[in-house]
Amino acid sequence: MKLETTPTGFTISLNGHAILRHTALTPAFYVGHGDERMAMYRGNFDIEDYVIERSALRYAVVDGDTVTLCEREGQPTRLVVKLTDTALEFSAEDPSINRFWMRVVADHDEHVWGGGEQMSYFDMRGRRFPLWTSEPGVGRDKTSEITFKSNVEGKAGGDYYNTNYPQPTYISSHRYALHVETSAYSVFDFRRKTFHEIEAWAVPERIELYAAATFVELVEILSARFGRQPQLPEWIYNGAIIGLKDGTNSFTRLEKMKEAGVKVSGLWCEDWVGLRHTSFGARLFWDWQANEERYPGLRERISQLHDEGVRFLGYVNPYLCVDGPLFEEAEKAGYFAKDEFGRTALVDFGEFDCGVVDFTNSAAADWFADSVIGGKMLDYGLSGWMADFGEYLPIDVELANGVDAKLMHNQWPTLWAEVNAKAVASRGKTGEALFFMRAGYTGVQKHCPLLWGGDQSVDFSRHDGLVTVICAALSAGLLGNAYHHSDIGGYTSLFGNVRTPELLMRWAEMAAFTPVMRSHEGNRPRDNVQIDQDPEVLAHFARMTGIYVHMAPYLKALSAEAAAKGLPVQRPLFLHYEHDRNTYGIQDSYLYGSDVLVAPIWQAAQSERAVYLPEGSSWTHVWSGEQYSGGNEVTVASPLGEPPVFYRSDSPFAGRFAELRTL
Amino acid sequence: MKLETTPTGFTISLNGHAILRHTALTPAFYVGHGDERMAMYRGNFDIEDYVIERSALRYAVVDGDTVTLCEREGQPTRLVVKLTDTALEFSAEDPSINRFWMRVVADHDEHVWGGGEQMSYFDMRGRRFPLWTSEPGVGRDKTSEITFKSNVEGKAGGDYYNTNYPQPTYISSHRYALHVETSAYSVFDFRRKTFHEIEAWAVPERIELYAAATFVELVEILSARFGRQPQLPEWIYNGAIIGLKDGTNSFTRLEKMKEAGVKVSGLWCEDWVGLRHTSFGARLFWDWQANEERYPGLRERISQLHDEGVRFLGYVNPYLCVDGPLFEEAEKAGYFAKDEFGRTALVDFGEFDCGVVDFTNSAAADWFADSVIGGKMLDYGLSGWMADFGEYLPIDVELANGVDAKLMHNQWPTLWAEVNAKAVASRGKTGEALFFMRAGYTGVQKHCPLLWGGDQSVDFSRHDGLVTVICAALSAGLLGNAYHHSDIGGYTSLFGNVRTPELLMRWAEMAAFTPVMRSHEGNRPRDNVQIDQDPEVLAHFARMTGIYVHMAPYLKALSAEAAAKGLPVQRPLFLHYEHDRNTYGIQDSYLYGSDVLVAPIWQAAQSERAVYLPEGSSWTHVWSGEQYSGGNEVTVASPLGEPPVFYRSDSPFAGRFAELRTL
Repeated sequence: MKLETTPTGFTISLNGHAILRHTALTPAFYVGHGDERMAMYRGNFDIEDYVIERSALRYAVVDGDTVTLCEREGQPTRLVVKLTDTALEFSAEDPSINRFWMRVVADHDEHVWGGGEQMSYFDMRGRRFPLWTSEPGVGRDKTSEITFKSNVEGKAGGDYYNTNYPQPTYISSHRYALHVETSAYSVFDFRRKTFHEIEAWAVPERIELYAAATFVELVEILSARFGRQPQLPEWIYNGAIIGLKDGTNSFTRLEKMKEAGVKVSGLWCEDWVGLRHTSFGARLFWDWQANEERYPGLRERISQLHDEGVRFLGYVNPYLCVDGPLFEEAEKAGYFAKDEFGRTALVDFGEFDCGVVDFTNSAAADWFADSVIGGKMLDYGLSGWMADFGEYLPIDVELANGVDAKLMHNQWPTLWAEVNAKAVASRGKTGEALFFMRAGYTGVQKHCPLLWGGDQSVDFSRHDGLVTVICAALSAGLLGNAYHHSDIGGYTSLFGNVRTPELLMRWAEMAAFTPVMRSHEGNRPRDNVQIDQDPEVLAHFARMTGIYVHMAPYLKALSAEAAAKGLPVQRPLFLHYEHDRNTYGIQDSYLYGSDVLVAPIWQAAQSERAVYLPEGSSWTHVWSGEQYSGGNEVTVASPLGEPPVFYRSDSPFAGRFAELRTL
Repeated sequence: MKLETTPTGFTISLNGHAILRHTALTPAFYVGHGDERMAMYRGNFDIEDYVIERSALRYAVVDGDTVTLCEREGQPTRLVVKLTDTALEFSAEDPSINRFWMRVVADHDEHVWGGGEQMSYFDMRGRRFPLWTSEPGVGRDKTSEITFKSNVEGKAGGDYYNTNYPQPTYISSHRYALHVETSAYSVFDFRRKTFHEIEAWAVPERIELYAAATFVELVEILSARFGRQPQLPEWIYNGAIIGLKDGTNSFTRLEKMKEAGVKVSGLWCEDWVGLRHTSFGARLFWDWQANEERYPGLRERISQLHDEGVRFLGYVNPYLCVDGPLFEEAEKAGYFAKDEFGRTALVDFGEFDCGVVDFTNSAAADWFADSVIGGKMLDYGLSGWMADFGEYLPIDVELANGVDAKLMHNQWPTLWAEVNAKAVASRGKTGEALFFMRAGYTGVQKHCPLLWGGDQSVDFSRHDGLVTVICAALSAGLLGNAYHHSDIGGYTSLFGNVRTPELLMRWAEMAAFTPVMRSHEGNRPRDNVQIDQDPEVLAHFARMTGIYVHMAPYLKALSAEAAAKGLPVQRPLFLHYEHDRNTYGIQDSYLYGSDVLVAPIWQAAQSERAVYLPEGSSWTHVWSGEQYSGGNEVTVASPLGEPPVFYRSDSPFAGRFAELRTL
């Protein structure tokens, strides 16, 4: 990083590329204070800002590696910026400053990617992205009926930028990465032609900057910075994880699926904790231990399954319901977040209240890791679980560490991941037990071995359907999350919107070319078609698990590469073809490792699809064996069971890929 | 007005009530600059502000009647405030300042009313009101299906603050009025407990302040300030204006209505200019002269009607369609607003383009007033017209006066009113010819003799139905608009939403107690029930016109009072009962003059209604003759034909009011 003075300011550049260009007329920094209004309703936030002051810091004094900024010459210092090798470190003496803006030099044809796990737009240029962990929304498109109805019923419609996993980090096509080290509410505004604006509702500790010669190196640097995941456990390569929540009937159904040729690595039963009956229907009982009523003799069945090569997975989240035994234990020990009167803060999840385990209290975090996840789950025989939620920390609770809950809200998913990772490590199961999360924030990479894309609608919609999990995998993957997967067939079925067999099959086709195949019955299992309810779907699914297993040697190599270098399994095309700018905007196809290109069918009734093949390689179409040269868009047939997949003709795995035709 | 210095600032008070209370810690003024994004689609605006700087002006120096403000001591002056008897006058040397904020002292239990013609909330406390003339929206409620669909189809759904007629003026329950003299985009933010925030996208010329001992005096002051309307023309008292757009068939239908007992003052045919057939259906031909094809021998028919005591009214708006003869004339003379290349700016109104007559060019304004409205309409025999539109000035046109169209946009309705008023005056018909407008802004009062409430949906909805025109009449009335009326039965029928006979009858019941009764066929006449299509509706309507005529002597007295003192015909209850704070929030009933209280039925299927009667008077229920003492809420039966109406038992018109029972 280089700091140079100019007539009325300074320039900061990285590897010769200007990042900040400050002059008295076009200042790079603004500070001020604001009074925000934030209201949460079941993980959805109404947020409105009232900026009371926003002052341009026009006057800069450069002294060595330090820049001192104020409004005008002779005025008190408002902000001090100190350059280190990789960061701008900030300090401000005025405690009333709770708004910070920085303008980064931008070019008109620059692309930017990242922002955590983004579901709608991979290239973020041209839009504004608030970064605040929350429910991502149902529909996520103000022009859709489902979004409208979700908004009316529960403020739940969402918008393009809502995500369970935001992160104030981006990669620029100028081959640098910028990361804001803060847990405050922040915003990336990429709408301007000549600058990007970084906003944070606190002066950030620092803004880190990394440059590299190639995108691959940049991704490696970020994954080293945020933490890498272990390799996938060996057992995952045996097939799909089958999600059922049907009590003991789940075992019978699993057996039938296996008989139909489905390759299975695990059985995942969310309802292992039992059910609660509410006016909305059956909900899980939020007390994290096996329910012998719903699953008699579960411990034995788990070990039986294990002997058959099938793992058992469960479910957990960071709340405890008031009527479960664990609540009492936690409350006695003072493990819950408190309300303003010092009482246990209770959160309504729909006809039942829960306490929020306070992970800033290390005793509480240790208890949850060791006694709950360790004692009740791992020791019981679970090989994995959905570690649900993480986005709901209420902003008005009192926490043990004394930090404002508004500043802890974004950090909560990472704390939650850490609790899970500690539990796994405490039993020596790191890289063996597999939990998966939807929520995230900076640092979740270090603790969470597998992301899942959250709750898509059971449809092909642009902003909440199948295609959004590609965007999610690619954006999160650039920031050091090597493994991503999603609910096959989607999750959210509301207002009469139900799965079609076609959706289920198209989703399974895609999932076969991701790190993990996992099915989900969805939020309304009875209203939606299930894998084992339609012979065509079942046969198709079985074949896809076969394809997944056939790809396992390649996937293992990718997993080794991820652990060693931090490269994600699913990659944007430009990662390996940065000379080909045609690839920079693509978000509906991806590289599966460096050698396979997957272009899922993400719309209904598509008998063919156009696919851009990047320049510089020769590509073989898996199902026809036809070879195409890169730098072209080609159209290939895409009947059910033959999603557009290509491999590099010169791949060392070419022989194996060619065999896919025979499966 | 009184200016006093305090240790770190100053206080400005009016009649002993503090308006501004400035200290270094809580400054009263902020200035800055912003870069807004504004896009118009058919009169609906997407507006988003990017505030680049907002500086608190903490340091104040008071010198006589002048306050000089800057950020900190020793810094350059940013804003100078000069006190006069009735205003704060502003000047700022820095031309980059295009954002201005002022904080006015507020009490927690203060009420505020005004803001022009507000359709959703009469008491504006607790909400934020952007003030920008535009389409008011269809549905105007983000939770309604109609709003959602209107947004998706044409960005047309609107919100609670959208109005054809905004005005940056309010009245406080502290018995003062505040008016911002600016045509820039502005905002009244009444959401804070201890201050109101006035925002303007330009430093305003001045902010006027008026105080009075009573609300009545305050309203008189404002009406004198903004201009008063002449008395209603004599012919209006003959009955209702019947709106038909059925070609010559209109005359036949009018005749039948008269035979059914309908009292008629005028026949209003929008389609007097002929029709244009588009894929959306029939539209008017926007060239402002009689169409002999659609109305053969119209001039004679008008004079025939006149002899029968019925006036003829037409339609005009400030655009000229490219394929009409007037366009050519205007373009040759250079009367149109220009685009960035100096060509006539064309606006698409849906399959036809129009020029925008540039009223900042006095030759163009005179031509439109004298040759078009004067020559083609008044001289032809028209006694009135709907002077439609005024809200659509595109913000990117070049105007003859050289002023930014963004600063002229809000002024356009007033210029449009002035053109109409000049035309009427040029023929000596002021107070005789009656035009009515929906668009407005500061100063429209002086020129426009009658407001109409715009295009309500044909329903009972809270934010776009019958009840909204009460709010409209009351808010506009406080600011000097004495006469208000609305389309009986509403106008906008979309997405299968159609009039019920009940709606039509309830609306007519209310209209009988307003200055003008006027029917409208609506935007889709064939899909919606019409006055003359249902015998029950027709009989009911006929009776209501009888009631209107019976009330004429009282209405004449109110009209005289309006001309003399500026008091509106429709008044909020608190205007005459300011000691009774229960009346301050009421917006679904009104005083019709001082002696009649009207509580329209504004929801479907109401057989009774609760009505608050203000304290200090005895009230007689019109239909039962029952007397009630004020200060109570009473519930009265409200079958069709008997809207809850009360009169002051001690009114000099009590005898006439009592006779209503017999009609």
